[in-house]
Amino acid sequence: MKQLGKSSKFEYTVEPFTEDFTGVLAWQELGKRILAAAGMHADSHGFGMKQLMPQNMAWVLSRMTISMNEMPKVNEKYAVDTWIRNIYRTFTDRCFAILRPDNTAYGYAYTTWALINMETRMPVNLENLPDGGFAKWIDDEKICQVSDNSRIRVKESEPSRVITAYYSDIDINCHVNSIRYIEHMLDLFPQEQYTGHPLANLEIAYHGEALYGDSLALYKQCVSPGVWDVEVRMQPREDETGREKKICSCRMTFK
Amino acid sequence: MKQLGKSSKFEYTVEPFTEDFTGVLAWQELGKRILAAAGMHADSHGFGMKQLMPQNMAWVLSRMTISMNEMPKVNEKYAVDTWIRNIYRTFTDRCFAILRPDNTAYGYAYTTWALINMETRMPVNLENLPDGGFAKWIDDEKICQVSDNSRIRVKESEPSRVITAYYSDIDINCHVNSIRYIEHMLDLFPQEQYTGHPLANLEIAYHGEALYGDSLALYKQCVSPGVWDVEVRMQPREDETGREKKICSCRMTFK
Repeated sequence: MKQLGKSSKFEYTVEPFTEDFTGVLAWQELGKRILAAAGMHADSHGFGMKQLMPQNMAWVLSRMTISMNEMPKVNEKYAVDTWIRNIYRTFTDRCFAILRPDNTAYGYAYTTWALINMETRMPVNLENLPDGGFAKWIDDEKICQVSDNSRIRVKESEPSRVITAYYSDIDINCHVNSIRYIEHMLDLFPQEQYTGHPLANLEIAYHGEALYGDSLALYKQCVSPGVWDVEVRMQPREDETGREKKICSCRMTFK
Repeated sequence: MKQLGKSSKFEYTVEPFTEDFTGVLAWQELGKRILAAAGMHADSHGFGMKQLMPQNMAWVLSRMTISMNEMPKVNEKYAVDTWIRNIYRTFTDRCFAILRPDNTAYGYAYTTWALINMETRMPVNLENLPDGGFAKWIDDEKICQVSDNSRIRVKESEPSRVITAYYSDIDINCHVNSIRYIEHMLDLFPQEQYTGHPLANLEIAYHGEALYGDSLALYKQCVSPGVWDVEVRMQPREDETGREKKICSCRMTFK
């Protein structure tokens, strides 16, 4: 058996029906691969859902930035390589390289996660885990180049679209799944946007959780040419009063 | 190199984020795998898009039936095996078995395709292809058990929902992709439908093509307990007058 390294690499082909209309891997498909790679790496290294669920703990994605110089085209091969970058109190950063078969990078992703206690919904201090937790797997040398740390603030008060969370939107935890927000955000832009100026950079921050049947308003605002901030706000539920609640916000930078 | 057989088998794992909220492979993910398997089998056997695109011809999916006794769960392995069942004038039938690692079947799929000339949009007679075409790959003995051939007719005149075709809906041919219709149809049913009574059988017939920006009305009608017929009708475009046009119709049978 191969010795377990700090990083894990998962190899794929862009299968037909996972590309967008321009013929490259769709962002939401890449997003699913990235989160699946995180899960599989954590499971194989002893700190995944497999080990944590029985302890009533779960990983929650807090932020994700994906920077792509190029996207693999349909039928092309690519790999997702992932490793832990660091651990700081209640957060840990995990990196990803999206690689060509010759190991040059299509792009990178950078994610921030919290481990929560499912009963209290409170974050666990990752520096105090038994036996040093998963600190031994940290690799702080591998390259992960993303453009990050924008301050996203949408002032727009007229939603571009209001959607309802349906069956296809919800994940195994019965929340709207993290990638599905990205899909709905991509759908705010017209077809011609993607022809000449594909998306190059996406930064998303998750603030809250929506459930089946929730009403989600999407707001978008142009920050500078080719740069858009998008916010998803949940409208008050039937039994609630009050204001919309911010669920996630995203900066999308087109080429 | 392994000798090319009549069928091709593609192996997968149900990766996290490809399951639905009940923890099994989502129907739309299975649908993508089925159509991808068709494409990869046809390419490797000399009659796929790779060979046909330069000749200005393309395969068009006309009907698809998927019958599943059970769905693989997240992290479980499954395989999609596919072969050509027969050829009759302008149509060919292609079968699929969705298999467990021990080769017992989770379920089957049966599809009907036409080959069209991209310029004239007319179907090609598949019995008159040069050198006998792909008839040598026919396997009419392998088992493919689906419940099929329902007469789907939706009389309902009030749509359950009207949607617009956005970026995520369209495929590389700039049409709303065949699987996306299924996703929108699944979304017509409430979350609780899927908990106790998952979908077991889906028959879909494609009648027309919708483009980016088209307005699609979804109608559903209960045929008998647990059996629903759904129809997608395209509303007249801005420059058009007249009635709605039937795009696809589907029978969904829940357990």
